[in-house]
Amino acid sequence: MKTPQNTNKPEIILTGDRATGPLHLGHYVGSLQQRTSLQHIHDQTILVADMQGLTDNAHNPAKVSSNILNVVADYLAVGIDPTKTTICLQSQLPALAELTMFYSNLVSIARLERNPTVKSEIQNKGFGRSIPAGFLTYPISQAADITAFNATLIPVGDDQLPMLEQTNEIVRKVNSLAGKPILNECKPLLSNASRLPSTDGKNKMSKSMGNAINLGATEKEIRAAVKSMYTDPNHLRIEDPGQVEGNIVFTYLDAFHTDAHYVNELKDHYRRGGLGDGQTKKVLEECLQEIIRPVRARRAELLDDKAQLIDILRKGTQVSRERTETVLFDVKELFGLNIL
Amino acid sequence: MKTPQNTNKPEIILTGDRATGPLHLGHYVGSLQQRTSLQHIHDQTILVADMQGLTDNAHNPAKVSSNILNVVADYLAVGIDPTKTTICLQSQLPALAELTMFYSNLVSIARLERNPTVKSEIQNKGFGRSIPAGFLTYPISQAADITAFNATLIPVGDDQLPMLEQTNEIVRKVNSLAGKPILNECKPLLSNASRLPSTDGKNKMSKSMGNAINLGATEKEIRAAVKSMYTDPNHLRIEDPGQVEGNIVFTYLDAFHTDAHYVNELKDHYRRGGLGDGQTKKVLEECLQEIIRPVRARRAELLDDKAQLIDILRKGTQVSRERTETVLFDVKELFGLNIL
Repeated sequence: MKTPQNTNKPEIILTGDRATGPLHLGHYVGSLQQRTSLQHIHDQTILVADMQGLTDNAHNPAKVSSNILNVVADYLAVGIDPTKTTICLQSQLPALAELTMFYSNLVSIARLERNPTVKSEIQNKGFGRSIPAGFLTYPISQAADITAFNATLIPVGDDQLPMLEQTNEIVRKVNSLAGKPILNECKPLLSNASRLPSTDGKNKMSKSMGNAINLGATEKEIRAAVKSMYTDPNHLRIEDPGQVEGNIVFTYLDAFHTDAHYVNELKDHYRRGGLGDGQTKKVLEECLQEIIRPVRARRAELLDDKAQLIDILRKGTQVSRERTETVLFDVKELFGLNIL
Repeated sequence: MKTPQNTNKPEIILTGDRATGPLHLGHYVGSLQQRTSLQHIHDQTILVADMQGLTDNAHNPAKVSSNILNVVADYLAVGIDPTKTTICLQSQLPALAELTMFYSNLVSIARLERNPTVKSEIQNKGFGRSIPAGFLTYPISQAADITAFNATLIPVGDDQLPMLEQTNEIVRKVNSLAGKPILNECKPLLSNASRLPSTDGKNKMSKSMGNAINLGATEKEIRAAVKSMYTDPNHLRIEDPGQVEGNIVFTYLDAFHTDAHYVNELKDHYRRGGLGDGQTKKVLEECLQEIIRPVRARRAELLDDKAQLIDILRKGTQVSRERTETVLFDVKELFGLNIL
């Protein structure tokens, strides 16, 4: 994990997840672990992005609403501490929608259509011109989220960098209109962990594809997922030399096994020949079972007391409401709209 | 003026104006007079649309903010009674922005681009692809305004009918998702008054074009405006026969003079020849001076006590906030987002 250069002054971090499914091991190595460290150093807020989840699920809203508390439970189960990290719910922060409306006047349709992330997502989802307006404009909504907290540091994968560019463009426009810096520009915090591949090595990890291991996966689910994991298709007999690159079992061992030296020995053995996939999978499975076991237990416990989860989310949302209203006030002031 | 067919049950009326300039005689015959009657029969709300004013004025926000109280003064000066009509400020109703976000997921970019009103406005303003996102999506924001009040009757010119179609499409989608009618479809109330032409007979009336007579116009301004009014360019000598059609002086006499019989006599005389433009303009000027004199006086008085205007707007906005939050709650319920 890369930490910001100036460690004297805490950064304001905004991060979050679309509430469209329970979180999985990809989130664990890609962001959750990082967040559990960052919360000790910086001012960190996690936004449960239910509104953004609806941008491509409006016709199946239960996919979003039913996952809100799952995601909160996932956070707490991996060690995110609500006394150190503010966890809040996007749909309960009207300032985010209001800022989105203001910023919508500062960004052209052409600019949105040039956004490479949105472009490729439109293609992936097969939207074409039938793309919902809310989907094309979601970079504006993300800019609203980030600036509403006046966030300075945003943990992202490199595919999300165009979003931060769009945000900073809006920030500069607003500040230029205001004639003074009322919003902060933000910097990306790129995760060192490369994107974890799906267990089948083919697609983006997702619950619906059945190629992800959720943080609440049962022992049996973990076993089955590791068993079916993509390895080296040319490694037919144990004694054959095998390929480590592109072999998902080794990718996962690199990501999760705590003993890098031991994993390197396994790789050498596999390359030489004489190490079967059954054995490497056994090592991986043990390692994953060990990681997920306490998370799953804690998660189940948390989901048993939904009132407590709601209370945590409510408190974080209240704090965030005050914060975001302050920024909204400044932006309204700029547009001369605080007359009442 | 056309009144709704079922006069037993009061309709819920939403109407409003973009706060981008003081109101003029075009508003007076096109909508203000109608509103002063409707307020006695129906449940009428007028939205001062400052947010929508910003969709094409974000870089000159003072054009919007400086006109908010002018517009409220215009309303009261022509006889809109705040004890009968709720007057509220768009930017102070967060539910409108939140509903816009929800509806944005239900409308495609292609659908917005097909909207004939938006299409022609994009052309008029020379936007092309550089159209601000907020401008392309403003029919969604209008649908949010209308449905937030659960309005049933919307006074419009026929160029605004595509907006109501878009609104009703959204209403049907939401109701279909909800499996029950949580939003009302709305009907247009078409004004009988044909759109009043500008004094130069060329362009849309607007203050910046200098071809409109504002409700606060001075005696001198009215005189000058009538003097420069477009008549019949072929009517060179008083004794020549003149043309009434397209002669703006007669269009205004039709719209404003209370004695239709007298206006018809003037028309006959003008057609026959022997009636000079100076004379018809004198009749029109007297008539307009008489209409505007008390409005101007009342308007100046109102603008002398800004605190009172703000108070009226604040009270109307408070009432409207409660109303719109109720509808927002129902829509959030539909999307399962009332968990906190």
